[in-house]
Amino acid sequence: MRIGIVGAAGRMGQMLVREVAATPGCTLAGGTERPGSANLGRDLGTLAGLEPLGVAATDDAAALFRAADAVIDFTAPAASVAHARLAAETGTALVVGTTGLSEQDRAALADSATRAPVVFAANMSLGVNLLLGLVRKVASTLGPDWDIEILEMHHRHKVDAPSGTALALGQAAAEGRAVALETVRRSVRDGHTGPRPAGEIGFATLRGGDVVGDHTVIFAAEGERIELTHKAASRAIFARGAVRAALWAPTQPPGFYSMQDVLGL
Amino acid sequence: MRIGIVGAAGRMGQMLVREVAATPGCTLAGGTERPGSANLGRDLGTLAGLEPLGVAATDDAAALFRAADAVIDFTAPAASVAHARLAAETGTALVVGTTGLSEQDRAALADSATRAPVVFAANMSLGVNLLLGLVRKVASTLGPDWDIEILEMHHRHKVDAPSGTALALGQAAAEGRAVALETVRRSVRDGHTGPRPAGEIGFATLRGGDVVGDHTVIFAAEGERIELTHKAASRAIFARGAVRAALWAPTQPPGFYSMQDVLGL
Amino acid sequence: MRIGIVGAAGRMGQMLVREVAATPGCTLAGGTERPGSANLGRDLGTLAGLEPLGVAATDDAAALFRAADAVIDFTAPAASVAHARLAAETGTALVVGTTGLSEQDRAALADSATRAPVVFAANMSLGVNLLLGLVRKVASTLGPDWDIEILEMHHRHKVDAPSGTALALGQAAAEGRAVALETVRRSVRDGHTGPRPAGEIGFATLRGGDVVGDHTVIFAAEGERIELTHKAASRAIFARGAVRAALWAPTQPPGFYSMQDVLGL
Amino acid sequence: MRIGIVGAAGRMGQMLVREVAATPGCTLAGGTERPGSANLGRDLGTLAGLEPLGVAATDDAAALFRAADAVIDFTAPAASVAHARLAAETGTALVVGTTGLSEQDRAALADSATRAPVVFAANMSLGVNLLLGLVRKVASTLGPDWDIEILEMHHRHKVDAPSGTALALGQAAAEGRAVALETVRRSVRDGHTGPRPAGEIGFATLRGGDVVGDHTVIFAAEGERIELTHKAASRAIFARGAVRAALWAPTQPPGFYSMQDVLGL
Repeated sequence: MRIGIVGAAGRMGQMLVREVAATPGCTLAGGTERPGSANLGRDLGTLAGLEPLGVAATDDAAALFRAADAVIDFTAPAASVAHARLAAETGTALVVGTTGLSEQDRAALADSATRAPVVFAANMSLGVNLLLGLVRKVASTLGPDWDIEILEMHHRHKVDAPSGTALALGQAAAEGRAVALETVRRSVRDGHTGPRPAGEIGFATLRGGDVVGDHTVIFAAEGERIELTHKAASRAIFARGAVRAALWAPTQPPGFYSMQDVLGL
Repeated sequence: MRIGIVGAAGRMGQMLVREVAATPGCTLAGGTERPGSANLGRDLGTLAGLEPLGVAATDDAAALFRAADAVIDFTAPAASVAHARLAAETGTALVVGTTGLSEQDRAALADSATRAPVVFAANMSLGVNLLLGLVRKVASTLGPDWDIEILEMHHRHKVDAPSGTALALGQAAAEGRAVALETVRRSVRDGHTGPRPAGEIGFATLRGGDVVGDHTVIFAAEGERIELTHKAASRAIFARGAVRAALWAPTQPPGFYSMQDVLGL
Repeated sequence: MRIGIVGAAGRMGQMLVREVAATPGCTLAGGTERPGSANLGRDLGTLAGLEPLGVAATDDAAALFRAADAVIDFTAPAASVAHARLAAETGTALVVGTTGLSEQDRAALADSATRAPVVFAANMSLGVNLLLGLVRKVASTLGPDWDIEILEMHHRHKVDAPSGTALALGQAAAEGRAVALETVRRSVRDGHTGPRPAGEIGFATLRGGDVVGDHTVIFAAEGERIELTHKAASRAIFARGAVRAALWAPTQPPGFYSMQDVLGL
Repeated sequence: MRIGIVGAAGRMGQMLVREVAATPGCTLAGGTERPGSANLGRDLGTLAGLEPLGVAATDDAAALFRAADAVIDFTAPAASVAHARLAAETGTALVVGTTGLSEQDRAALADSATRAPVVFAANMSLGVNLLLGLVRKVASTLGPDWDIEILEMHHRHKVDAPSGTALALGQAAAEGRAVALETVRRSVRDGHTGPRPAGEIGFATLRGGDVVGDHTVIFAAEGERIELTHKAASRAIFARGAVRAALWAPTQPPGFYSMQDVLGL
């Protein structure tokens, strides 16, 4: 499978290059960087701390989509929307791990997914995607006398809160209870809050150091608590999940897929 | 439903009396204490810190089984086996939350369960019983590159290790992997242990203070961990589960049931 | 030592009665309830689930201050301020564990403390008061490349956030860094927050079930974290600390004391 | 300061090379590998994934000690003892982060330390060394009704249990209580253990995945727990501590130093 990487010289791009190079059955079809980047023309293997791979960074994303079976994208919302358009034009599979997408951005991805397989997930790790299913199930089993709270911690550079993964966990809990998350979401508690309303799903956010990502969903009742936790220690788990998705997506018809589809959960 | 309690003046017995008194649809059919106990003849409500209930502690277990629809037993292995015999003789449902039973003791309970409904669980809380199902499912989903470890903490008075609940969680994990727990169980690590063998299920035990019971099952892979935790803050959750079982069991045919059966998990 | 309790029939009041009854060297000097309370005239021992103590609930706080060596108060801000005035008038020691006091309320307590010993603490447990000292010390030792975050979880009935104890821990951290907490406090993160500013002290709040009170102070740097945690499993620890303070305060000159003074930390 | 690294091409050696290269005021004096290693003659910068540093791996440890102001050693017990002899012969400072040393090995290091400054620590991170001081202090403050338990988790490749760091934490707790660790240490709980003896210091060990190292010291009493935790996310913190020690040690007279000396804790 020929895999292309957009944003191939960035921190996550380098990790993806290493993961593609290490995965049997994959070859690196190419990689792009922004026009004007000092890394254009440099070998992507060298940039990723490997032996040279004989593949240089270019700024021609359209050519990359034509040359690849699947393209992986951990860039930024506007770029990912543009890449989805290229996927639709070429029929090439696209795997998007970009965070911070608006509802409108997601709609644009879904629209492109009518003409190419597009996998999108706020978190590509096996662990988090397994947790999403557990949270949905537990929330649907336990009655309303169990309060649901979601806690996450990320590094000091993260610019949004709660994390996309925390929101996805809240979404799973809300689905389990058959309510809309927006009607029960509580992201701020400060000052005189009053007692906790029944049915609320609370979010709490910690930021500090270089924490890759910790998430806990707490179910709290009288006398007992259940806590479901995921701890990410390395961004490699996201690269591993993305490459797994890139091996799977080209075998599928056009459609808007989740990592749960990829993993068969 | 008329519910009897054996060992009704002990710490757990008092909690059961309070739970029965507080649960709609239940009445206290009676309660026993050991022959010679100073509490014989005293009102079980008063002993439990409630208003008098008009029911005095006796030492006649056989009469209790005849008077009750279900009897709850958190006593000791030998006593529970004797009570199971009374259940078989009278056809009265029995709910056993006693810990530390040997394989032989369990076989004796199962034998009595051919003539009366018997519910037996190392842990009667809703949370732990839900966790057992999650652990089985996660263990069956994740491959052998995820290591399984089970951690528990209990109060300083607990005399056995690992806890019965920890072993039940290990059993659930082993079932998920379709292996026998005894072939992969590792309860001791001390000194030069060598690297962790693949497939091992490890147990770690903490003891201190008056901790009611914390359990965590850890699934650890390269770069990520999933942790499933239950924290019991009050023994009332065990009493609540036992009363729930006592309301359910008399409606069932003879059989050896778990809390998962009671809860429909 | 003769100890009085205001609000003696409430949940915390009953716990204080039990603690006084169980502590050698203490006698219960009396206890008050609000005028019109159905508990007036009832025995405080019976109300607390003990044998009768021969001491009935009254609504005469002034008489209680005259009869006691120390009075313990876990009521509400306005009541505590009124009680402090009685302490000042009678010279009787006062121990205040009331939460949610405004700056003005604290100033009123401090004012009364010029004429009687007054102990005030947001949290009377030995553990939390020890933690306050550790947090101050660690914050002063670690440089600004360690981010400080404070997490707390309490039961669903709690009406304010962050908890008074969390704010006290933040205060201790700020003192360790020689900054004013108000200049670095961050209690809300929601939406696009931008990267974490250096020096910020963040607060995160969880609410659910009947959790008595969990607090964690996190120090997070590149590649490592230190976490200092306190878990309260029973309100008895607050009663125990209050009785300890009530045994200590009458031996002191007038002054405004903390639990750290009482415990000699 | 000219810093040498023994075992410079291994996983920890490479990390040390990167740390030296990134630290102002340091230069890499050289690095050794075992005679016959395929890496002899290769550039240490290239081996560590950096640009070439113009320093090749050699097998001449004696020459390295003569060329360096300080040598860093994360190798194996026998090698570290041999290196300590070279330090004594040359007067060059030595920083040892090797784990699994026997009492005899430590005595050999201490002996060499009469002629050169030798820093030795089971764990070179700032966080753990700070924690050691906190544990000693808390253990000395809290009475015997607080039970002490030590929990650690490490990756599946670790061959000894409990970890050297866990034992050092237990040592600190024992010192705080003025007892010898060996008289109160409990590393195994399995089967019928009986109630926890007062004064015991318990150890529990978890192994799995690629966990760098988590340690928690628990102090548990009636109704409350204090937990002091360190989480290492990257071995870089050990390299950083070692380089800090290597910058400090050459300024000291001969002596056997700990990281607490280096950090001035």
